[in-house]
Amino acid sequence: MATLNDIGVAAAINILTAFAFLLAFAILRIQPVNDRVYFPKWYLKGLRSSPLANGGAFASKFVNFDWKSYIRFLNWMPAALQMPEPELIHHAGLDSVVYLRIYLLGLKIFVPIAILAFTVMIPVNWTNNTLEHSGLTYSDVDKLSISNIPIGSNRFWTHLVMAYTFTFWTCYVLKREYEIVAAMRLHFLASEQRRPDQFTVLVRNVPPDPHESVTELVQHFFLVNHPDHYLSHRTGFLGLWGNRVDAIDFYTSKAERLSRDISSEREEVTNNPKSIMPAAFVSFKTRWGAAVCAQTQQSRNPTVWLTEWAPEPRDVYWENLAIPFVYLTIRRLIVAVAFFFLTFFFVIPIAIVQSLANIESIEKAFPFLRPIIEVKFIKSLIQGFLPGIALKIFLMFLPTILMIMSKFEGFISLSSLERRSASRYYIFQFVNVFLGSIITGTAFQQLNNFIHQSTNQIPRTIGVSIPMKATFFITFIMVDGWAGVAGEILRLKPLIIYHLKNFFLVKTEKDREEAMDPGTIGFNTGEPQIQLYFLLGLVYAVVTPILLPFMIVFFGFAYVVYRHQIINVYNQEYESAAAFWPDVHVRIIVALIVSQLLLMGLLSTKGASQSTPLLITLPVLTICFHRFCKGRYEPAFVRYPLQEAMMKDTLERAKEANLNLKGFLQNAYIHPVFKSADDNGSDSDNDITTGEWEQEPTLVATKRTSKRFTPLPSKDGGSLLPSDEVKDERSKP
Amino acid sequence: MATLNDIGVAAAINILTAFAFLLAFAILRIQPVNDRVYFPKWYLKGLRSSPLANGGAFASKFVNFDWKSYIRFLNWMPAALQMPEPELIHHAGLDSVVYLRIYLLGLKIFVPIAILAFTVMIPVNWTNNTLEHSGLTYSDVDKLSISNIPIGSNRFWTHLVMAYTFTFWTCYVLKREYEIVAAMRLHFLASEQRRPDQFTVLVRNVPPDPHESVTELVQHFFLVNHPDHYLSHRTGFLGLWGNRVDAIDFYTSKAERLSRDISSEREEVTNNPKSIMPAAFVSFKTRWGAAVCAQTQQSRNPTVWLTEWAPEPRDVYWENLAIPFVYLTIRRLIVAVAFFFLTFFFVIPIAIVQSLANIESIEKAFPFLRPIIEVKFIKSLIQGFLPGIALKIFLMFLPTILMIMSKFEGFISLSSLERRSASRYYIFQFVNVFLGSIITGTAFQQLNNFIHQSTNQIPRTIGVSIPMKATFFITFIMVDGWAGVAGEILRLKPLIIYHLKNFFLVKTEKDREEAMDPGTIGFNTGEPQIQLYFLLGLVYAVVTPILLPFMIVFFGFAYVVYRHQIINVYNQEYESAAAFWPDVHVRIIVALIVSQLLLMGLLSTKGASQSTPLLITLPVLTICFHRFCKGRYEPAFVRYPLQEAMMKDTLERAKEANLNLKGFLQNAYIHPVFKSADDNGSDSDNDITTGEWEQEPTLVATKRTSKRFTPLPSKDGGSLLPSDEVKDERSKP
Repeated sequence: MATLNDIGVAAAINILTAFAFLLAFAILRIQPVNDRVYFPKWYLKGLRSSPLANGGAFASKFVNFDWKSYIRFLNWMPAALQMPEPELIHHAGLDSVVYLRIYLLGLKIFVPIAILAFTVMIPVNWTNNTLEHSGLTYSDVDKLSISNIPIGSNRFWTHLVMAYTFTFWTCYVLKREYEIVAAMRLHFLASEQRRPDQFTVLVRNVPPDPHESVTELVQHFFLVNHPDHYLSHRTGFLGLWGNRVDAIDFYTSKAERLSRDISSEREEVTNNPKSIMPAAFVSFKTRWGAAVCAQTQQSRNPTVWLTEWAPEPRDVYWENLAIPFVYLTIRRLIVAVAFFFLTFFFVIPIAIVQSLANIESIEKAFPFLRPIIEVKFIKSLIQGFLPGIALKIFLMFLPTILMIMSKFEGFISLSSLERRSASRYYIFQFVNVFLGSIITGTAFQQLNNFIHQSTNQIPRTIGVSIPMKATFFITFIMVDGWAGVAGEILRLKPLIIYHLKNFFLVKTEKDREEAMDPGTIGFNTGEPQIQLYFLLGLVYAVVTPILLPFMIVFFGFAYVVYRHQIINVYNQEYESAAAFWPDVHVRIIVALIVSQLLLMGLLSTKGASQSTPLLITLPVLTICFHRFCKGRYEPAFVRYPLQEAMMKDTLERAKEANLNLKGFLQNAYIHPVFKSADDNGSDSDNDITTGEWEQEPTLVATKRTSKRFTPLPSKDGGSLLPSDEVKDERSKP
Repeated sequence: MATLNDIGVAAAINILTAFAFLLAFAILRIQPVNDRVYFPKWYLKGLRSSPLANGGAFASKFVNFDWKSYIRFLNWMPAALQMPEPELIHHAGLDSVVYLRIYLLGLKIFVPIAILAFTVMIPVNWTNNTLEHSGLTYSDVDKLSISNIPIGSNRFWTHLVMAYTFTFWTCYVLKREYEIVAAMRLHFLASEQRRPDQFTVLVRNVPPDPHESVTELVQHFFLVNHPDHYLSHRTGFLGLWGNRVDAIDFYTSKAERLSRDISSEREEVTNNPKSIMPAAFVSFKTRWGAAVCAQTQQSRNPTVWLTEWAPEPRDVYWENLAIPFVYLTIRRLIVAVAFFFLTFFFVIPIAIVQSLANIESIEKAFPFLRPIIEVKFIKSLIQGFLPGIALKIFLMFLPTILMIMSKFEGFISLSSLERRSASRYYIFQFVNVFLGSIITGTAFQQLNNFIHQSTNQIPRTIGVSIPMKATFFITFIMVDGWAGVAGEILRLKPLIIYHLKNFFLVKTEKDREEAMDPGTIGFNTGEPQIQLYFLLGLVYAVVTPILLPFMIVFFGFAYVVYRHQIINVYNQEYESAAAFWPDVHVRIIVALIVSQLLLMGLLSTKGASQSTPLLITLPVLTICFHRFCKGRYEPAFVRYPLQEAMMKDTLERAKEANLNLKGFLQNAYIHPVFKSADDNGSDSDNDITTGEWEQEPTLVATKRTSKRFTPLPSKDGGSLLPSDEVKDERSKP
């Protein structure tokens, strides 16, 4: 058992490590040669140019000789905090700003809880002599924890009241935060400039039709079912106000990037029916029209003509657009089963690898290494190091594995892929880090135990072990949290890779631009890590409040570091307007419920079982609170209110009456294959392409309209296709 | 333990009872005096007039002397089956027809299962001697069940294969049935005549506004956010094509039914702002417009301006229209807790009542009864009878209690109230009848046991008891199923009540009309009963297949009886177009999963635990199947596809170009208080009211439009109200 002294020593070591990282960072960042590693965001925004290109002494291009800048080596911290939130939203997007708010939320929840715990619970715990008389070995940490209260004591009422207070406080903060984030999101969406995704709906599972191509089919369907009433041939606005402004189909086949004959190649792809996916981005003239189409069911058969908001163009995950409905169900089942086995049985293959990767087999495989291995020091090093290596490698690749799973499941935007991976990563950490540390043994053993245990025994088993693991988790917070965050700011890996690339590969300024790896927040790994801290904080708040200050230091420090990184380094690949907040909210709720159940289990072993009814009420209330929040705030993250859409449409019409929306939208959703082809060409080339795209929908629309008024057979035979039936009836009156 | 002989005797008794009921029914139904009890549906349809009013001998008006009709006393059965399904839909509505399909579904699932079970499993079970050598008492029924297989036998593979076969068959039938019912629903909705609810959306939680009345607010909101584009003041269609055709507000205060001054009274209510609820029925010009509004979110704040499809006018539960969003969450919590206690602790108050209601306390309360009670025979009768009485009374009132709970929860249509009550009733029966019979003891004791048992022990505990209870459930099916259904057709209670009323109260023909009680299907009690049979059938299909024929007889007999009742007796209060089918489907899925888990528990005690992984796969696959069905078919029961709406709108416009939709809609949604006032008046009176209602929206619309074009302050002060802001911006271009 660690004493307070031990923890102090560990804290000192970790603080020193963190400090060393910060120092290294402070020195490295002001060297001009590292500028692109530590300030890539500004390069990407075009606000900073390479110091190497500027004039001046040769050496000072690479190394900073200005001694004054070394003195102010920590001044990045206040600088990081200075940029006000609205500016930060403009600079880095809402996703990043709301992501930072998760750290702030940690501070908001845990600072008052810690103050209350230290003024009320620590004295209550401390002024007992249970442990002294128990004859057990114990440490000072345990004297501050719930373990020091005698069995059946009335003092447990304090813990009960505190559990209620903490729950209410957490719920209050969560509700307020949800409210703020929802308002921020709505405000962000409302104040935003015109964006293509506001007008666009993604249509998937377009049913196959033997008579019409997908393009024609999509056009007919939406002409019939979403007639934009401002279009009227009577009034003569034809063409300019075509209903379906454009339906840019998406082509899979990989057009070769020959800049010479891009257009002919593209034409070929466009005309090849096999390369056309049954999915389309349909744009509308108004936000209202898009909002209506995205939120409603189009067809009788709910598995075809599936509409949803188009993700931001950058956010589209093109590979998954064409998965049929039935496959989605099957894929989800497969992934669910695979993830179950991954979580509970991942140790089995690792154990096999470990059993193979021993010194004997290495010696057998590489006999020439034997003399080196047989050295006693090296041998013991390898023996201590080897077993862990398979696990470390596995854990390193885990986020990638989870991301592959999510991709296989068929999500169609990067943001939803990351959110799904984050959920899975959290579950994995909950089972294997949280439960795995509390009840030693593999996840599978735990699972087996739980199945064979009675339902009310499970929280008891875990609850009892909770206080004993406090020191372990305090150390964990310092190593993983403090030193880990400090390591994040140093960016050792990108630094090394950048310099290697710079040395060996970079020839032009453009190459240097590509060698730069700003990275992203990494929601799929970062958020589950924060959530683990929320879980630890809530679980230990009542049991061992001494853990809370360590938590608070983590949240505060991480907030500053990530704010700095977001301002100077990360470059988000997409903007989902904080669509992840419901996930963050629900995971904190889960942590709260877990903490309540574990406290119940713990107290039931402490002769305070008369408190069980009161403790059972807590999760019920918490779930009820969650359902309320879900109903009240979640729609802001899922749907798009018509009032809002109408307001923006009206405003826009008032301000820019003659806006050419078509021109704005036509190039928004193009498969990267085509896009990169465009990028290679010059700007004028790009304009030509634009012209080409602009023509196409008009052409189709004209053909279509003529058909409407001439009963003569038109190009596609004039046969009565399913959608033609409806159309013909419409033209009757 | 009952032998096959015992069951035969019980079957004979129950068949005789059922036969006696049928005979009594056959005789009673052809007596003219009972005509209104057994054929009320035809009276309500106006297709049958009272035999008492016709000419003929006095006595023959009351008693049937035609001896020939007594010979054909069972001919109602083929008659009930003769009416073809489309005609039945027209006669009794889709709800009733689909309800009958539940019984048919039982036959479709269990007849093939029974055939397979009798050809394969009965021989496999029978040809063992386990029970003979076990020294236990056993019966012939047990010899036919899984109990007769020796522990660890390879014959369990038969049961495993059968479990798979039965699951796949059930899923196949379920999927096909879901498909058919969904198609029937869509066809019904599509082929239906114009109905007010197709054009109407219910708006709830209209936010309070200090400057505008609810009516004005609703009108402004929908004028701005759902501008119907065919309306244009420019074109001069004003009034005729007013966007918001009508928003009939709903007034709570109970207008006294004085036919003299109805209109003045109504005016008073209309003008009293306190009696106006923040809810409105908003009608649209097209089905498309209504479909869009019902399926989308209107406002930023998802707790106000809640829109949903208006229920059928008959189906509206007016009392719940005005419950605010926050209260709904709280009410749901309260009901959930109350239902939990009702299910698991209902025995406690009943036990208390029972302990009070003993002979001693009766003697104390009513000393004059003592001489009678002290007679030995009467005493023992009371002692045997009394304890059960409280329970019987409770069970009689249970559906009512559950219905009150559902009403308290805030559902806004009778159909959803019945669906919710049915779910609760099923859960109650599952816990207290199914589990309660298998594991003797109260539900609370079971709950307590389950909490203290390990998770994998629970299916084992129940599974082991399953085969032992087969004979009990066979008897249950005969008493509750066979004799119960035969009792249903006799309608003893309505018969007695009708004759009592007829004798004491009835003065006019109208009174007689009111004395008639056709009743309804009673979805909230009937469906859970059928579900209990599905559960029993699926659970025993593998374990004791001898139970299946009894089940099949029930389903067949009940089908005929209920078909007869639906044709001749029941009068549905509403038509939900089979909206209950997803509930039916999911409960059968639950029964399937329960049967799989129990089989797993049973086999694990039989030394066949190597089959566990194979058996665990079954529920996983079943859940996956359910999710597929939910995605594929449920939307047909929840949403209304735009394609469909557009098609109907187009057709209608083509056929009836000059339809006065406003006239059609204006009287559809009126609170029953007003409606009954109308009924009292003559037809011309009704017309006057119509005119009155017709005027109102036009008036408001005019005021509104003038405001839009004149910047002068209009009637309500011209101050910038929230919705005015938007409006003003719209009028800029």
